[in-house]
Amino acid sequence: MKIPKVPFSPIRFSDGTLFLLDQRKLPSRELWLACRTSLSVWKAIRHMAVRGAPAIGIAAGYGFYLGVKDFNGGYRAFMKALDKQSRYLDSARPTARNLAYALERILNRVSGSGERDIKKLKNEVLEEAKKIHTDDIVLCRKIGEYGSALFGKGDTILTHCNAGGLATSGYGTALAVFYTLKEKKIPFSVFVDETRPLLQGARLTAWELTKSGIPATLICDNMAASLMRDGKIQGVVVGADRIAMNGDTANKIGTYGVAVLAKVHKIPFYIAAPSTTFDLKAKTGKDIPIEERPHAEVREIHGKQLAPKGMKVFNPSFDVTPHRYISGIITEAGVLKPPFSFSLKKIKEILSGK
Amino acid sequence: MKIPKVPFSPIRFSDGTLFLLDQRKLPSRELWLACRTSLSVWKAIRHMAVRGAPAIGIAAGYGFYLGVKDFNGGYRAFMKALDKQSRYLDSARPTARNLAYALERILNRVSGSGERDIKKLKNEVLEEAKKIHTDDIVLCRKIGEYGSALFGKGDTILTHCNAGGLATSGYGTALAVFYTLKEKKIPFSVFVDETRPLLQGARLTAWELTKSGIPATLICDNMAASLMRDGKIQGVVVGADRIAMNGDTANKIGTYGVAVLAKVHKIPFYIAAPSTTFDLKAKTGKDIPIEERPHAEVREIHGKQLAPKGMKVFNPSFDVTPHRYISGIITEAGVLKPPFSFSLKKIKEILSGK
Repeated sequence: MKIPKVPFSPIRFSDGTLFLLDQRKLPSRELWLACRTSLSVWKAIRHMAVRGAPAIGIAAGYGFYLGVKDFNGGYRAFMKALDKQSRYLDSARPTARNLAYALERILNRVSGSGERDIKKLKNEVLEEAKKIHTDDIVLCRKIGEYGSALFGKGDTILTHCNAGGLATSGYGTALAVFYTLKEKKIPFSVFVDETRPLLQGARLTAWELTKSGIPATLICDNMAASLMRDGKIQGVVVGADRIAMNGDTANKIGTYGVAVLAKVHKIPFYIAAPSTTFDLKAKTGKDIPIEERPHAEVREIHGKQLAPKGMKVFNPSFDVTPHRYISGIITEAGVLKPPFSFSLKKIKEILSGK
Repeated sequence: MKIPKVPFSPIRFSDGTLFLLDQRKLPSRELWLACRTSLSVWKAIRHMAVRGAPAIGIAAGYGFYLGVKDFNGGYRAFMKALDKQSRYLDSARPTARNLAYALERILNRVSGSGERDIKKLKNEVLEEAKKIHTDDIVLCRKIGEYGSALFGKGDTILTHCNAGGLATSGYGTALAVFYTLKEKKIPFSVFVDETRPLLQGARLTAWELTKSGIPATLICDNMAASLMRDGKIQGVVVGADRIAMNGDTANKIGTYGVAVLAKVHKIPFYIAAPSTTFDLKAKTGKDIPIEERPHAEVREIHGKQLAPKGMKVFNPSFDVTPHRYISGIITEAGVLKPPFSFSLKKIKEILSGK
């Protein structure tokens, strides 16, 4: 399989080291984090040096390999070690489905290989981690193809958070739509929600779009509603952290509000995500765990206190958008349309076929 | 008239100096700005050392006096100087109605006084400025009385931006409701939108509520929607910068989105504002000028760059909430209810009676 090109590669693996473009430092510095242990990968995920559901999955895959590559012992002990590593890495963050997906996929390959030789089994782990990585590039390209067909000349599209190259293998999900529109030379422009508290829109999406020459305007999250009312937004595309089997979608906090506002203003609202983000075990959004993150993320910016010390904070990292607010889910298998219970059959086939 | 007590006085005038609690420095420092000229008052308004529609009006009143107190010349020249000063101060910021209201009120008093003595006329200016200030204290108290009757034991109320003591003479409009609930010993709690870009919620409302011991939780603006969906908010109260005669209301950017989300979730949405915020000349929200502010307010925090340099920004400071999203307008003359065209008669009487 020929692997398509990506605008940039935020995740690289070579010589037993996982290199991650540290997303906490962008856009002011392009700093690479070198991870040589599963602990350091776990930390990179937990503390968001790498973020975005597909990117978390890819990093976890390599982290899995780093966690077992120095294993010394017999087959049963190795399988036990794999199980332990898997549960350990899965504990880094709770919401992104792609994390558990990657770990399960590697476990399935190893246990299904019929192999008993430890060295060869370790190699199976690494090969599957690499395959998760390269697969993602292909999935994102397809999402870009399908998603770009939804928009036309002169459209202005709103996005929230960063579902870009940084959140994936380099081409993005929501941003794949933008990159593909640009490649097709269709003129369009973007409004970027800054996305409090961690400002993934202002820092990461703005950085990607500036880099790629896509016309984009940064706004605060609370400005989108009046832009919609003024007819300045023709569509919304965002990513996803986990999608339930009725179409309910967990994504960065604020997504639900954007979806409701889009519906009220009769603006189509799309989720862009690969099949790896769907959770066969989650029937509805109620089955998706929502992470709460440290209060300092809201109270401080760059170490500077914004609110009074001791001010109580609520900081959920995600929210769930009920499927009735979603106009379509852009996947590598096409754009799923409501009713999702029907159109999700494709995703079930893909996920059970693997 | 006995003037009620206020939790604190963010505006003080003594010995020809206007002292303003510099709201840009809160909550980390309580710094007082001493203004001795109308230029310094103009700057304090433009650069938001003083903000909040009623507070801007009060400051402008004193600024008006500072701008003419050293005038030397005859009656006609004085009236010309008054006119010039009025237009000058009015240019500091475009949206808050109370700014023009205060200036017009002083002009009317002077021209209606029948007085020709310059010293006495200057005194009329100062006396009216002081009256605008003390009147506001009374208005805010009444708003607190009427507004507090809308809520009950155990309610959790969302507010956006700062419509507190800092935005007024010390008791607030939206926050007057909270202060009065507290005085009445009715248990309740508050969610505070941080209110990007200038974080008046995180910095100012959080400071006021912490100071007064009202239980409050800070959230990012984009978190309100999911709290509403989870049934955690029983009502919304915000201030206003200008209200048109059909009830359409300009307030801090983000208010419109909150109002739409409240409607969708069947949560009552209230505006709290004195008659001085209503604009008899504005038929609808379309007649309200919306200020755009510097891009650096979005791109930077405390001088720290958040977004890539050169990133395009859109930074409207206000939005207009159409009257159909407003459950009631809490004024000193009672809670106006839809249809506003009818209930606004009271406000017309108050404003034309003055």
